[in-house]
Amino acid sequence: MMMLDAAFYRRKLAQIQAALPGAALDGILLLDTHNVIYASGFWHIPSERPIGLFIPASGAPTLFVPLLEQENAADCVVSDIRTYFEYPGETHPVVWMCRECGAKRLGIDAVDQAVFARLGEGVVMSALVEHLRWIKEPEELALIERAARYADYCLEQVRDHAGQVIRDGGTELDILRMCLSATSARIREEVGEMFRLGGGAVVGTVHSGPRAALPHGAPGHRQPQPGEPIIAGIGVAVGGYHAESGATFVAGEPSAEVMRCLRAAAACDRAAIDALRPGATCASVNAAALAVLRDAGLGDAIRHRIGHGMGLQGHESPWLAPGDKTLLVPGMVFSNEPGIYRPGIDGYRLIDSMIVTAGAAHVPSRFLAENPPEKRILSI
Amino acid sequence: MMMLDAAFYRRKLAQIQAALPGAALDGILLLDTHNVIYASGFWHIPSERPIGLFIPASGAPTLFVPLLEQENAADCVVSDIRTYFEYPGETHPVVWMCRECGAKRLGIDAVDQAVFARLGEGVVMSALVEHLRWIKEPEELALIERAARYADYCLEQVRDHAGQVIRDGGTELDILRMCLSATSARIREEVGEMFRLGGGAVVGTVHSGPRAALPHGAPGHRQPQPGEPIIAGIGVAVGGYHAESGATFVAGEPSAEVMRCLRAAAACDRAAIDALRPGATCASVNAAALAVLRDAGLGDAIRHRIGHGMGLQGHESPWLAPGDKTLLVPGMVFSNEPGIYRPGIDGYRLIDSMIVTAGAAHVPSRFLAENPPEKRILSI
Repeated sequence: MMMLDAAFYRRKLAQIQAALPGAALDGILLLDTHNVIYASGFWHIPSERPIGLFIPASGAPTLFVPLLEQENAADCVVSDIRTYFEYPGETHPVVWMCRECGAKRLGIDAVDQAVFARLGEGVVMSALVEHLRWIKEPEELALIERAARYADYCLEQVRDHAGQVIRDGGTELDILRMCLSATSARIREEVGEMFRLGGGAVVGTVHSGPRAALPHGAPGHRQPQPGEPIIAGIGVAVGGYHAESGATFVAGEPSAEVMRCLRAAAACDRAAIDALRPGATCASVNAAALAVLRDAGLGDAIRHRIGHGMGLQGHESPWLAPGDKTLLVPGMVFSNEPGIYRPGIDGYRLIDSMIVTAGAAHVPSRFLAENPPEKRILSI
Repeated sequence: MMMLDAAFYRRKLAQIQAALPGAALDGILLLDTHNVIYASGFWHIPSERPIGLFIPASGAPTLFVPLLEQENAADCVVSDIRTYFEYPGETHPVVWMCRECGAKRLGIDAVDQAVFARLGEGVVMSALVEHLRWIKEPEELALIERAARYADYCLEQVRDHAGQVIRDGGTELDILRMCLSATSARIREEVGEMFRLGGGAVVGTVHSGPRAALPHGAPGHRQPQPGEPIIAGIGVAVGGYHAESGATFVAGEPSAEVMRCLRAAAACDRAAIDALRPGATCASVNAAALAVLRDAGLGDAIRHRIGHGMGLQGHESPWLAPGDKTLLVPGMVFSNEPGIYRPGIDGYRLIDSMIVTAGAAHVPSRFLAENPPEKRILSI
């Protein structure tokens, strides 16, 4: 089982605590599931029953859980665990938590306006922990590296076996099941328990032909036809940390136009990697990467930003997108997803995972670098 | 494919529109994923990219989606679809949506306080659609009935085959895989596509022995031992609508104490069904049901409320729990989950699905009524 250890979570609690005075807060109440996990190691599935982690500027933290999570919570680094019976209860659990915190000026990370309106004075929104999560530590990056390699392995299954699946009359779903089951088996063998929260997991999608033009389409019972692009996008989590790898393959011989698009996507991928340097802004990386597609005459085929942050969540801030002026700092992790979508015709998408370093970006997903367009042609 | 049709969604849009003047609103902007699905039929997975449905007091509704969802959105009953390029964007998408709505007094169903603080004046929180969803129409209830029967079928697999799995040395996870795969296969055959959003799905858990005392534990590599209770809890969705069925079995011959607990849980189940009448409050049903466990001397073993609402979400309001003073109305759907949890010793949980009618509650899950405690003893 690959997981972060108690020392990591204790360090995070101390870092958050140390940052509170600078944010003019007496304490912070974390309600966002991933923020709570990040600072305590208490893995849980979000539900209507709020779970809160209070970190005071001085003193021990408190974890607030519904009664039915009491034993599960006992495993984490927080020893002061307080329970409420049920949701909704005579008093809303978040109102009760705020009272228990007793902080005059209390930061809160995420809360619906309808609940916020019921909280007392002195409660202010704070993105302190979200910002801390942006910069990954070496042990977090090690999990992301591992996840990226499994995502690569899943794509290698597509490269090596999807042609046979198609020759046997198989569909997008058959290709997807083939690559996911091989990867699941390997993760289970090497990483261990997959059912446990924070364990290993692999998800993905496969689309072909005109349906590849839908960035968020679902895989279906469709057999890829000769000459068509096939998009495979794979996401893996190891120890709860996410990475992605994705590629566009071609079923049989590609036309010159298909090769042109594959090469434009590859150039866009490289432009994003080249632009990912400390001091650049997230928005500028997006602009530099998408400019390559526009320069290739494919501007009308752009349907989304170049990438998103990754870590405990598959998608998390900051965003390589218009409007995000965050400055890049070593330890940040992003997806890099050049996409070309031509409704009714075809679609292309590549995915790399990228890590900001003091120098050139590090790319833990290796499939695209090792498999340029001409190596992604499937014999059918 | 069992799904609600366009007529249902058009009726919902009209009902919401008709209710706006009474709520003193010029329009409502829905941001909650399930509220948007409920009123438009636009099935989608929530992400950081907000999706909004604006329903004005008069005139046509508008669906706001990120550019990459444009084609997916085109299938739903809303014809005015407006897109934004990406998240976060120079202007936050929800700020943009509120401007586009142009309503002087705009209701909003769910929004984080950090975003709410950036919206203009005249925006107020409204639970109008959440409350409308409480009362299911006949076609919604038909999907829930169907889902409950598949959950029953899954339990029948446990009843008929788990003894053999245990005799063969199998674990909780083996029992779970066996019953889920049989049920998945049947749903796929009878209902069709399971990968599609809003299609069929089955999930569940199996715990045994002392681990059955954890209401939210994960199934593991543990072989149930002779005389131990085995909790199986199954949730199914058909056409996106949820139902649950669950039972506690015994591996081999039960002790008198195990039988006493199984019978106390069954009596609690019946008490909840008996109490579920129009005019009662949600909290009073919870109190009447849990009183049966207290009267049986099992008060210390109560770890959670008796039940929750079900529909488009597996858990949704209202709640059969302390603090929920909602009056029951025909068409409401609830789970009924008597639970007895004794840390370090054992645990018991039953689950029925219940529908409020003008008279006695209707119970679409039939497994518990057809399988009293003595029929849930597995030969091992």
